[in-house]
Amino acid sequence: MLTDQQILRIPGPTPIPPSVNRAMSQPMIGHRGESTSDMISDIRPKLKRVFGTEQEVMILTGSGTSALETAVVNVVAPGETAAVIVTGSFGERFAKICEAYNIETHIIEVTWGEALEPSAIKEFLQEHPEVKAVFSTYCETSTGVLNPIAELASAIKEVSEALLIVDGVSCIGGVETKMDEWGLDVVVTGSQKAFMLPAGLAFIAASERAWKKIGANPRPRFYLDMKKHRDNIIKDTTPFTPAISLLFGLQQVLRLMEEEGLEEVYARHRLMMEMTRSAFNALGVPLLTSGEDASPTVTSVQPTDFEAPVFRKIMKQEFGMDIAGGQQHMAKTVFRIGHMGYCSPADMLQAIAAMEIGIAKAGGAVELGKGVRAAQEIYLNEGKR
Amino acid sequence: MLTDQQILRIPGPTPIPPSVNRAMSQPMIGHRGESTSDMISDIRPKLKRVFGTEQEVMILTGSGTSALETAVVNVVAPGETAAVIVTGSFGERFAKICEAYNIETHIIEVTWGEALEPSAIKEFLQEHPEVKAVFSTYCETSTGVLNPIAELASAIKEVSEALLIVDGVSCIGGVETKMDEWGLDVVVTGSQKAFMLPAGLAFIAASERAWKKIGANPRPRFYLDMKKHRDNIIKDTTPFTPAISLLFGLQQVLRLMEEEGLEEVYARHRLMMEMTRSAFNALGVPLLTSGEDASPTVTSVQPTDFEAPVFRKIMKQEFGMDIAGGQQHMAKTVFRIGHMGYCSPADMLQAIAAMEIGIAKAGGAVELGKGVRAAQEIYLNEGKR
Repeated sequence: MLTDQQILRIPGPTPIPPSVNRAMSQPMIGHRGESTSDMISDIRPKLKRVFGTEQEVMILTGSGTSALETAVVNVVAPGETAAVIVTGSFGERFAKICEAYNIETHIIEVTWGEALEPSAIKEFLQEHPEVKAVFSTYCETSTGVLNPIAELASAIKEVSEALLIVDGVSCIGGVETKMDEWGLDVVVTGSQKAFMLPAGLAFIAASERAWKKIGANPRPRFYLDMKKHRDNIIKDTTPFTPAISLLFGLQQVLRLMEEEGLEEVYARHRLMMEMTRSAFNALGVPLLTSGEDASPTVTSVQPTDFEAPVFRKIMKQEFGMDIAGGQQHMAKTVFRIGHMGYCSPADMLQAIAAMEIGIAKAGGAVELGKGVRAAQEIYLNEGKR
Repeated sequence: MLTDQQILRIPGPTPIPPSVNRAMSQPMIGHRGESTSDMISDIRPKLKRVFGTEQEVMILTGSGTSALETAVVNVVAPGETAAVIVTGSFGERFAKICEAYNIETHIIEVTWGEALEPSAIKEFLQEHPEVKAVFSTYCETSTGVLNPIAELASAIKEVSEALLIVDGVSCIGGVETKMDEWGLDVVVTGSQKAFMLPAGLAFIAASERAWKKIGANPRPRFYLDMKKHRDNIIKDTTPFTPAISLLFGLQQVLRLMEEEGLEEVYARHRLMMEMTRSAFNALGVPLLTSGEDASPTVTSVQPTDFEAPVFRKIMKQEFGMDIAGGQQHMAKTVFRIGHMGYCSPADMLQAIAAMEIGIAKAGGAVELGKGVRAAQEIYLNEGKR
């Protein structure tokens, strides 16, 4: 096998574009100097466009979880009650953070592979008027479900004053996000998914309503204090030492996104999702989620006539291609294909053609070329729209 | 379209492996220091294995043509007659170099897309006993023909004392070469093809027989004087300043080749050729060369129901994929796919799936998925051998 070839098709991290790798290898600069301020000044408006907000998007040096914790400690005051929508293992993470802070937390469990119905959150909040904050994933990475965040936000607003805090880690940058228009109160994401960067940066923004809450919240915090971050970013700086090389990369990533056009970026992600789903449908290999609940960034597959772990091992051995496993109770029954960030329709054609071989080698029934053909048809029809 | 993605499927340069790019970005070192000598000492035996020779393989700082010229000026003495086997545009280059030196040169023309029959060179030399040197390409890059070099060498030896000088630029490193066993007198290649490096280095080795000729040859030469190069490389150094970053890269490339195993490298190239050829056969798109004459490193396609230039433009626009055109009189009727160097079966699955779309968009008749299926079947059968 060709050595030194790794084809990363997991739901994050994604491959890094060459120009971003080059940007990240620039010589270090002082983080209190003018060059860093100029860079942050260039980044700020572009980051706001990706979030769909006029609010400041703050840049934390930390992984996605640091931003989830930032949301919890800034928004939920001591003694307040929260609710967490759990559609998979990343929903659970919000619950664990709340638990670590002894926050009274309701768990709204949804069957893995399904999204939450907006009516369900409405009913829940009518029964639980004490809830001050609702946490939800946007894309649930562990299942490939995209929760209907805009609809959840309006359902919540109809019956409650609770703030909606959204974990967009595995989709923002690849899926349209209109934070202000949809009325999302806190939105969080990380750098290593649709942002095409290594892990190490996290981004967070808050609505006016949320900022009021944050300002009045006496819960102790320091590194993760959103007010400190906002006071600094509006002056094109950061309260603590930023990961400069990742900022170099972020600046280039945002340039690439604007060069392609945000609408085009989102259309490319939808196209890759449709190509992937249509391929497995054509091959008769069951998908975990319905088309309605599916995320444009990650697809979960639940094979019935071959073993997912065997298949994944074959893909790695034969093609150097990394396909993710399922998580927790789905660890051995599901595999997940990332199609986000630095990933193209041509990459999906490759992944699908290679996966057909992988399925055959894993003992699954497969009509060679049929999945590729379905994906090609989607691609060709897309062009005709 | 995803910006910053370029999929290079031309017959050289090929993509560079990431570890080779990293190696090439090491800080400069002095080329007369111990580190450079250690590096050349590490490179020498590995380069000999790729050439299949016990002779020294000399490293020139220059492109492939510098090594072709090196062969001419060192091997052909003033007043001697040469013959050049021309199976395409790179055969012609040898003839042009001979012409520049006013060397009396016979041209043995072969129809583009075909290899030379060993019997033909035998007959030719019987009629032309004055010929002292025969020049031939191994792989003719412009057509994707692999000349039967071992057979040509023995045919020549049967009837003549003429030296055989081989241009292996677009195949050595991807195709087995047994210089000593086959009796090749001078073998030349460049860095940017199956060696997976940028252009800038060229390699040349000579047989005992050729060295005698070289030693006695009074033709003036300096930078390209093979004797100067040999006197230095045996002391792990070079007569002139070498391209150090390319040497860093060469050292890593040779490590990768040995890690994979040379036999495996050659098998991978044959597999990629078979996958590509079977795909076009299944799609009913004519290939330029027969299976017998085909090179494992490049495939030429001669479509009848769509325009090659239109197709190539579509491939670039849709997928950022570079497919080469034909050369000279075949510029507009042929396209060429490189499958050498840093290129894998997974890359060929991608290229084939994408090319099916390209053919459809160029107006060619194509049954989607059929070429991919044929390639997948080749891949699966290969594994069973």
